[in-house]
Amino acid sequence: MEKGEDKHEEEQDQVVNPWEVTAKDGGKIDYDKLIDKFGCQRLEEPLVDRVQRLTGRPPHVFLRRGVFFAHRDFDEILNAYEKGKKFYLYTGRGPSSEALHLGHLVPFMFTKYLQDAFKVPLVIQLTDDEKCMWKNLSVEECQRLARENAKDIIACGFDITKTFIFSDFDYVGGWNNYFGNYINISPGIQVVGIFGFSGEDHIGKVGFPPIQAAPSFPSSFPHLFSGKDDLRCLIPCAIDQDPYFRMTRDVAPRLGYHKPSLIESSFFPALQGETGKMSASDPNSAIYVTDSAKVIKNKINKYAFSGGQDSVEKHRELGANLEVDIPVKYLSFFLEDDAELEHIKTEYGAGRMLTGEVKKRLADVLTEVVDRHRAARAAVTEEMVDAFMAVRPLPNMFD
Amino acid sequence: MEKGEDKHEEEQDQVVNPWEVTAKDGGKIDYDKLIDKFGCQRLEEPLVDRVQRLTGRPPHVFLRRGVFFAHRDFDEILNAYEKGKKFYLYTGRGPSSEALHLGHLVPFMFTKYLQDAFKVPLVIQLTDDEKCMWKNLSVEECQRLARENAKDIIACGFDITKTFIFSDFDYVGGWNNYFGNYINISPGIQVVGIFGFSGEDHIGKVGFPPIQAAPSFPSSFPHLFSGKDDLRCLIPCAIDQDPYFRMTRDVAPRLGYHKPSLIESSFFPALQGETGKMSASDPNSAIYVTDSAKVIKNKINKYAFSGGQDSVEKHRELGANLEVDIPVKYLSFFLEDDAELEHIKTEYGAGRMLTGEVKKRLADVLTEVVDRHRAARAAVTEEMVDAFMAVRPLPNMFD
Repeated sequence: MEKGEDKHEEEQDQVVNPWEVTAKDGGKIDYDKLIDKFGCQRLEEPLVDRVQRLTGRPPHVFLRRGVFFAHRDFDEILNAYEKGKKFYLYTGRGPSSEALHLGHLVPFMFTKYLQDAFKVPLVIQLTDDEKCMWKNLSVEECQRLARENAKDIIACGFDITKTFIFSDFDYVGGWNNYFGNYINISPGIQVVGIFGFSGEDHIGKVGFPPIQAAPSFPSSFPHLFSGKDDLRCLIPCAIDQDPYFRMTRDVAPRLGYHKPSLIESSFFPALQGETGKMSASDPNSAIYVTDSAKVIKNKINKYAFSGGQDSVEKHRELGANLEVDIPVKYLSFFLEDDAELEHIKTEYGAGRMLTGEVKKRLADVLTEVVDRHRAARAAVTEEMVDAFMAVRPLPNMFD
Repeated sequence: MEKGEDKHEEEQDQVVNPWEVTAKDGGKIDYDKLIDKFGCQRLEEPLVDRVQRLTGRPPHVFLRRGVFFAHRDFDEILNAYEKGKKFYLYTGRGPSSEALHLGHLVPFMFTKYLQDAFKVPLVIQLTDDEKCMWKNLSVEECQRLARENAKDIIACGFDITKTFIFSDFDYVGGWNNYFGNYINISPGIQVVGIFGFSGEDHIGKVGFPPIQAAPSFPSSFPHLFSGKDDLRCLIPCAIDQDPYFRMTRDVAPRLGYHKPSLIESSFFPALQGETGKMSASDPNSAIYVTDSAKVIKNKINKYAFSGGQDSVEKHRELGANLEVDIPVKYLSFFLEDDAELEHIKTEYGAGRMLTGEVKKRLADVLTEVVDRHRAARAAVTEEMVDAFMAVRPLPNMFD
């Protein structure tokens, strides 16, 4: 970890972070102390002279008067530049206000100088998404402000043949409204709460839930449901996904959408018994769609937890315990014929049918399911995948 | 907030959340208890009968045998459907493994039945981004698994004229690599840490920093820097942005990029004095690029903190305190002429020049800066904004 420290330590002293700049006791910002704390380097005279030498033009006022006073590896950029290796510039703005003040112009005036002096490309990020969250503005208002601010930035004289300006909603988010929905869903969902994240979790994981929530709202799919914001959504899923959509349902009315409806399944149990979901990490806990008839038969015979009794005699007497019997449970998922299933349950439960017979029937049923799936999958071409995943209208959507 | 609770309470008991399913003491999942805790509704017989009546076909095995056993507002979907209002289906899969097992097929077999029975469109989300973060797989591997899993899903027999399958990297992320970089940057950056987020912060804010970090890597701009992953990046910014890029520099080597270099400015002070940044919320603390010459003159005269003495006599005797004088500070930003600036500092510091004279000079200098900016901004058309923001190569990038 590079030198630097978190906000907490600073709080007793001056606070400088992207969201707050406060000097100690209303005094001046102590920039020397800031350099020490952040662990960046002071931008000294010799480096300024070197810029002049390398670019053949006088250093900008902001450079020669110490407005830009600190750096990280600026010398390495110059070393590389001296050897003919160019670089690119990146700066940005959070578009939170209509009109810029002079302080806002400072980085752009300086960046224009750098672009002209070094002859390098520049990307300018407008963090309209950030302002949406920190200033509680609407997505549309932030997008409008981003364009207005872009005009002020362009007015600083950037070279259009070297400059790319982008807003997060447009460039990170793209043409669909997915990212806008993401940002709108987030407020009110705390780090510690429904998902039980902690301070040690990484920020990408913590930020994930709105990505799974967004498809619940029709506006995430403008190529399908444009103008149909009133359309309801039904989500079939296993019940472990409920927290995502409990959250989504809380958020929906605030955004003007119907709460998504859910229809939720229990878990398909492991061969070893009903203590949870099958584990993808233990290949013997599950029947895979790639398993052969022989593998299926062996897995069932060896691992499927039986509710039958220890001996044939005892089994004939007491019958199987259907409550814990995995073959019967599996048959209840995949044997279509209600009458046959009832028959098996009655006979097996009464001890007239043995575990081996039930397992044999199950192996046949599952082999048929798996064989059918494997044949269907083999017929799926790359082109079909492309076709299903193409962004397109769905012609027979409601027919 | 809808009924439901967080992970912590459950931990003493059974755990069911999107990342963990564990029964109590190795026993069976208690689904009745789960319905109570989550606050969803039991899917009873009359609702199943209603599905049969509305769709005119026998309910799916998974419905009539209680595999799908719980719901939220499924009855409302049916109420609306009965009145002729269609809905759409949304389900998904986290593509973490090559081969699916039978448990994975359950929601898709059921969803296909719902699509056929109700004749409604379906969106299927492949959360390749999620698996990338939770399983520590590469972006490319997750994208590959998403396509492989899509084949298994398609093999379940979905109607291509009603079904849209999408992966997060493709559809949420779009054509550029921005979202991939976002996901790659996140690991290692904890909620509580460099940015000082807390458990009460909302997840969108916590997830924001990688969005500001991503432009530091050339691969975020394939239309500009494709094949140039070795290109260095220089970031001119005010020093309050340092935490973002300190984080980015920590992450860069792991991703195979150069650490971005920084060149960092102090803050342009408020008219009232150097205690931090200008505040956009107090219009009298700053000169705006929209201020007229008259407004600029008035603001400077009324609000610009002076280092001059209380009386002319005292000022002639002691001179101005240049350390705290805002007009001199502002001139050092915007008066180009080094000789004139030195002259003012000498004369003003010695008491031979009065505050009023310095303020008058400053008003002239700032009016010129602002007028020039305003004229330039007025010349910026909507078409120019579109042109700068267009995704395009930059022809003279390095010329």
